[in-house]
Amino acid sequence: MDNVFEAMTTAELEVAIAELEAQADQIRARGLSLDMARGKPSAEQTNLSRPMLDLLTSASDLSDQGVPADNYGIPDGLPSARELAAELLGVDAANVVVNGTWSLNLMHDAVVNAYTKGIAGQLPWCQQGEVKFLCPSPGYDRHFAITARYGITNIPIAMTPTGPDMDEVQRLVENDPAVKGIWCVPKYANPTGISYSDETVRRFAALRPAAPDFRIFWDNAYAVHDLYDEGDELLNIFDALAQAGHDNMVYEFASTAKVTFPSSGMAFVTASPADMAELRSAFSVMRVSPEKISQLAHVRFLGSAEGVREHMKKHAAILRPRFELVEQKLSSGLADTGIATWTKPRGGYFVSFDGPVGSAKRIVALMRELGVTLTGAGATWPYGKDPLDTNIRIAPTYPTLEQLGEALDVFVVAAKLVAARIALEARGLD
Amino acid sequence: MDNVFEAMTTAELEVAIAELEAQADQIRARGLSLDMARGKPSAEQTNLSRPMLDLLTSASDLSDQGVPADNYGIPDGLPSARELAAELLGVDAANVVVNGTWSLNLMHDAVVNAYTKGIAGQLPWCQQGEVKFLCPSPGYDRHFAITARYGITNIPIAMTPTGPDMDEVQRLVENDPAVKGIWCVPKYANPTGISYSDETVRRFAALRPAAPDFRIFWDNAYAVHDLYDEGDELLNIFDALAQAGHDNMVYEFASTAKVTFPSSGMAFVTASPADMAELRSAFSVMRVSPEKISQLAHVRFLGSAEGVREHMKKHAAILRPRFELVEQKLSSGLADTGIATWTKPRGGYFVSFDGPVGSAKRIVALMRELGVTLTGAGATWPYGKDPLDTNIRIAPTYPTLEQLGEALDVFVVAAKLVAARIALEARGLD
Repeated sequence: MDNVFEAMTTAELEVAIAELEAQADQIRARGLSLDMARGKPSAEQTNLSRPMLDLLTSASDLSDQGVPADNYGIPDGLPSARELAAELLGVDAANVVVNGTWSLNLMHDAVVNAYTKGIAGQLPWCQQGEVKFLCPSPGYDRHFAITARYGITNIPIAMTPTGPDMDEVQRLVENDPAVKGIWCVPKYANPTGISYSDETVRRFAALRPAAPDFRIFWDNAYAVHDLYDEGDELLNIFDALAQAGHDNMVYEFASTAKVTFPSSGMAFVTASPADMAELRSAFSVMRVSPEKISQLAHVRFLGSAEGVREHMKKHAAILRPRFELVEQKLSSGLADTGIATWTKPRGGYFVSFDGPVGSAKRIVALMRELGVTLTGAGATWPYGKDPLDTNIRIAPTYPTLEQLGEALDVFVVAAKLVAARIALEARGLD
Repeated sequence: MDNVFEAMTTAELEVAIAELEAQADQIRARGLSLDMARGKPSAEQTNLSRPMLDLLTSASDLSDQGVPADNYGIPDGLPSARELAAELLGVDAANVVVNGTWSLNLMHDAVVNAYTKGIAGQLPWCQQGEVKFLCPSPGYDRHFAITARYGITNIPIAMTPTGPDMDEVQRLVENDPAVKGIWCVPKYANPTGISYSDETVRRFAALRPAAPDFRIFWDNAYAVHDLYDEGDELLNIFDALAQAGHDNMVYEFASTAKVTFPSSGMAFVTASPADMAELRSAFSVMRVSPEKISQLAHVRFLGSAEGVREHMKKHAAILRPRFELVEQKLSSGLADTGIATWTKPRGGYFVSFDGPVGSAKRIVALMRELGVTLTGAGATWPYGKDPLDTNIRIAPTYPTLEQLGEALDVFVVAAKLVAARIALEARGLD
């Protein structure tokens, strides 16, 4: 629908702004201190994993399938941990390494390996002149930060409701040998919450990269993070690769970060046998043997993929009302204004909001003034530069429902006030 | 004393060899399968830390000084973990980051940061042409593997009973701007077990490097790993730096790897405030927040530096007889042969053995034939190349006392047989 502020007469618009400013003043006077910035689980969620702490005691058998968890060794991870990871991702455990706590760190090390040593028999990226990564945007700032750190050019790619703009992806990947990778969160993408369609996954698998050392960084961070019993179904990228007759093109990552305790879980990576051989060789210098005590606790607590799904239902019961509150507040506050769109994810950790062109930085600044912290505007784009300055990432998981409702009420006022001011300013420019 | 085999007549030598070969044949016939290669704690040792597993339960307070251990955040590590690390190293907790399980991985990341991004305002090492690291040898193969991986030239430096040959270190560091670092294990060095003298530490602190981006990688891996109540005392390198009026020259690393469970502990790094700012900036992209559940368990279990020392006494009680058995067996078997020297460490994990020139590879190969695995000869030198082929690393911690005694009996026969054969062959060449 049309932007209601643009449809007003200037006199009407001035009245509307005065009313919104009065509302903002009232909010400001309350001295709020709320936070919708952080993509982290609430205490209610982390408490779900406390029973894990009872499973290993001084009397426990500290071995897994005959392998000791309490000493060095087993660089690929405990057998049961690899099997659980493989089951979750639908791949062969032989191609899985469970090592470390953070999948982001595994991604970093995979980039550093290609950058400093080269992969697939090619020169190190640092010796190949300009190297480019495709960055579906809005996306995850910490992905973009890794490639930016090593001077790799981050190229934004439009996100659609079915995934990245695959025509553009294909054009760039298949014609430009400087394009070495793409950052993907294929299920419940950060921050849009959309999942890639089967067609999108198949088009990824069918890519014929110009660069032999092009890799898809498939960060399946929210593989099991459904809000509803009927979750989005993501096609298995390795099945699609096999169907397309391709291999050596995908590194898939995941972790238990938002399953158990963030930063105290298990992270894993899988790829083709040849790609895994390269990664294992790099890890043999970069890393030591995995944190197997934590792995042992995890596999005894989670058991199997089915056990993980049951556990995630408890998370969903906590998160669903939060996501539904976002939808309800934004819908009741903004649906009839025509000033914004937002996503309605069925899983993951974020809602992506788009206001009028040029509004995002101003909304975030106004929110801060009104006592509510949001993720910085632009953070979801490479180099922090949202070209239209429209996108804001809403993180509803950490606040209580009550805090979240309050923060969203403030957000509605801020979004409307900034949109109204922009409409008035545009008029002055005519 | 003189080499007894060299002093024999050729006829005597041939008899001696025949006798030793007969002994070797008897050993071979027993089909032994023993291992003196691995620098890892025995199960008896890891069991000492089992009570740690009882300390966190589902009912525990999972916070430390008001900071939650069960969620994201706190990139420098839990306050109590940083304080414990600081107390162990005698530094200010403000300059300590506790992050990750493996100090070797922290060292790797510090090298990668300098190599890819540069430190101290200098160009990245990868853009500076040849870069060199000094490698006191015999030393730790996994240190040398990190620098070798990035094409850095590893230069062996002689080890003396008081530490690296400091004249040579000073000459190279102060005159060659390509020298960017040195690998040091200053206390109970791997594998010699010697500790750097106060004079050595002071000479390190007084260095005036030609390169502003030269750093000492001070891997204090065995800081608390004394075998006797009276342990070696290592001068605090940061105190020595302050006395010398220097800063920004040392990265110090340590971990609980051989205190609690290897690969499931806490690793830490400390440096000057300016150096820590650079490392924190790198870590902010490379890493996520630390494994704080494990940190919490560790600080509750170990408590303080005093608690760590008490715990390490239990390790010492297990390890002391093993090290004393090495000394006893080598001494009774070889002391009157003049063919070898070895170290008598008062802590750490290894004994360093030197046989006749050209003997190490042959002894290791013969031992394998006789059913005993040793660390590969040469492993303790850069690129695996021991120039005189004399050095063998003996790792007495993992086998039982009985297995260790058997392995050492075999070792004595193998060392003598190889030395005798070398003496005979040399004669043939005259």
